[in-house]
Amino acid sequence: MTVRELRVSLGDRSYPILIGAGLLSRADPLARLARGRQVAVVTNDTVGELFERRLDEPLAGAAARISIRLPDGEAYKNWDTLDRVFERLIEARFDRRCLLVALGGGVIGDMTGFAAAVYQRGVDFVQVPTTLLAQVDSSVGGKTAINHRQGKNMIGAFHQPRLVLADVETLRTLPARELSAGLAEMIKHGAIADTGYLERLERDLAALRACDSAALADAILRSCEIKAEVVAADEREENVRALLNFGHTFGHAIEAGLGYGEWLHGEAVGAGMVMAADLSARVGLLDPADARRLRETIGAAGLPVAGPRWSFERYVELMSVDKKARQGTPEFVLLERLGKARVQRAPDDALRATLAACSG
Amino acid sequence: MTVRELRVSLGDRSYPILIGAGLLSRADPLARLARGRQVAVVTNDTVGELFERRLDEPLAGAAARISIRLPDGEAYKNWDTLDRVFERLIEARFDRRCLLVALGGGVIGDMTGFAAAVYQRGVDFVQVPTTLLAQVDSSVGGKTAINHRQGKNMIGAFHQPRLVLADVETLRTLPARELSAGLAEMIKHGAIADTGYLERLERDLAALRACDSAALADAILRSCEIKAEVVAADEREENVRALLNFGHTFGHAIEAGLGYGEWLHGEAVGAGMVMAADLSARVGLLDPADARRLRETIGAAGLPVAGPRWSFERYVELMSVDKKARQGTPEFVLLERLGKARVQRAPDDALRATLAACSG
Repeated sequence: MTVRELRVSLGDRSYPILIGAGLLSRADPLARLARGRQVAVVTNDTVGELFERRLDEPLAGAAARISIRLPDGEAYKNWDTLDRVFERLIEARFDRRCLLVALGGGVIGDMTGFAAAVYQRGVDFVQVPTTLLAQVDSSVGGKTAINHRQGKNMIGAFHQPRLVLADVETLRTLPARELSAGLAEMIKHGAIADTGYLERLERDLAALRACDSAALADAILRSCEIKAEVVAADEREENVRALLNFGHTFGHAIEAGLGYGEWLHGEAVGAGMVMAADLSARVGLLDPADARRLRETIGAAGLPVAGPRWSFERYVELMSVDKKARQGTPEFVLLERLGKARVQRAPDDALRATLAACSG
Repeated sequence: MTVRELRVSLGDRSYPILIGAGLLSRADPLARLARGRQVAVVTNDTVGELFERRLDEPLAGAAARISIRLPDGEAYKNWDTLDRVFERLIEARFDRRCLLVALGGGVIGDMTGFAAAVYQRGVDFVQVPTTLLAQVDSSVGGKTAINHRQGKNMIGAFHQPRLVLADVETLRTLPARELSAGLAEMIKHGAIADTGYLERLERDLAALRACDSAALADAILRSCEIKAEVVAADEREENVRALLNFGHTFGHAIEAGLGYGEWLHGEAVGAGMVMAADLSARVGLLDPADARRLRETIGAAGLPVAGPRWSFERYVELMSVDKKARQGTPEFVLLERLGKARVQRAPDDALRATLAACSG
């Protein structure tokens, strides 16, 4: 199977994304980066047992190599866990020329990326995402973060990786629920930017859920392209990058209200997109038939199509601590039509109706 | 007294430094930045009581204003303290368009700057340094950091302020010991880059120690210019910026070995410069007479001219965890002559002789 390659264009912070089956054990670009350097592979027990040995070949030329195993799950994406990474790096005398390799899903990627952003004021890192969500989402854009007790991803940095290796073989061991969570972000990319891609996803949904390598690699490539274009236009999320938050204002509220880790991020985004599309129709932007179509696609991907049954006030409270809120008032990414999104506020009565229609 | 102004040139991260007496209460550039934004003044009790009210005028147009008081001292420059800043910002619903104002010395500046670098992946901040050390050192260059249990400034970021206000009136209440600590960095600037400036400092030492406003403002301006030139040439410390670490490899070892806060940073750098100059002479670079002259100037500035009496092994152990160490082996900034520095390793026997001659 051929390796698909994409370059994220960010001036002197540009980097390649390689997508293919069986990439890990024969990754020349990783070997070139690692040669002669101190390398730390940051992973968790589950992913480490499955895939860490595959990095032996590309990391053979490293000057030193350590493995850092973190506890698994969004609940551990906090300072205490990060502090263990720093402790290990300092103990092993890793200097500012070291290289961190994030081997795992979004939590590992976010934490390793943030560790790399702030260890000794910034060191290089490589993303080796092993979940579908991480391959299409966190691998592009350089957003890194940890959670604060009072809010998700509140503390973080923009820090671009030097290289991303997306090996679709690692997805074969992924639980179906996590595969669906990845599909949520891919459906999002279609919904905000490319109806042709959305149609392709609808058509290939069965092949994707069955982990067909070629279908996955093609779709991951298109998702990464869409995200890379948006990020290249707006690295620090001052305008268009906000469109990638389609479904996320509701999604983050759901995650925060249930407690992080109860629903997968992609599941919350799935329900959040149903809500955002419903709201888009209620404010007169999106054709209600298209809102229903998106709801069906999200359901067919194995994702929830409604949020928890909470009061209007509860949702508003949860949404107002979201980072995207401007001084406390939540904004939404809404669809003008399938394939085109915009940011705007919504009247309370429309929001109230959406929450009543799409929760419980 | 006229306001001196200097621009730090870093492309779209360029910013002005204003230096003068009584600047705080009539700072138009701060008023322009603060207008309509959520503003948090981060300070400690001592400095806050003395100067925070002076910001009432420039911050009058802010959309919201909170005051965050941190415990004083290097020992608190850690994650636990930073976490309190985040807690307050999140509680007050500060969004990513907010502005942090660091009112205080280097510890407040480092922590506020790092908080600004990572809160919501980066917000704006302004430096209002109230110690001489902070006015000539941390106000230029964008280095921000906190300490880790196992090493000073191990966790941080490069994050440039939008504006620096150096009001020399705030130095009148500064203990003599802290004024001397600031002089250490100024002597360093002369030693590595400008003998004319070093001579001027030697000549004006009495006026500077007596807090003469004009002498201080002139010297602060020259120090900031030297540092700004070096930083503009090498923002992320990949080469020449390392020269600013003259005296710091020894200095950091002294601070780490004694426990942070025992000696002031500038005091450790004072003794560290004596050691680095001695080592420069021993490896055949610097004229021994110039090493003695620098030692005398450092002593006349009220700074220690020797480090604690520890074994060679203890010093080497302490120095090898310093960030500037390349994979464990310490490098030194040495003087070729007064006014010119370079980075290199030194043979163990020369280092041993320097430590014997300059400690205890």
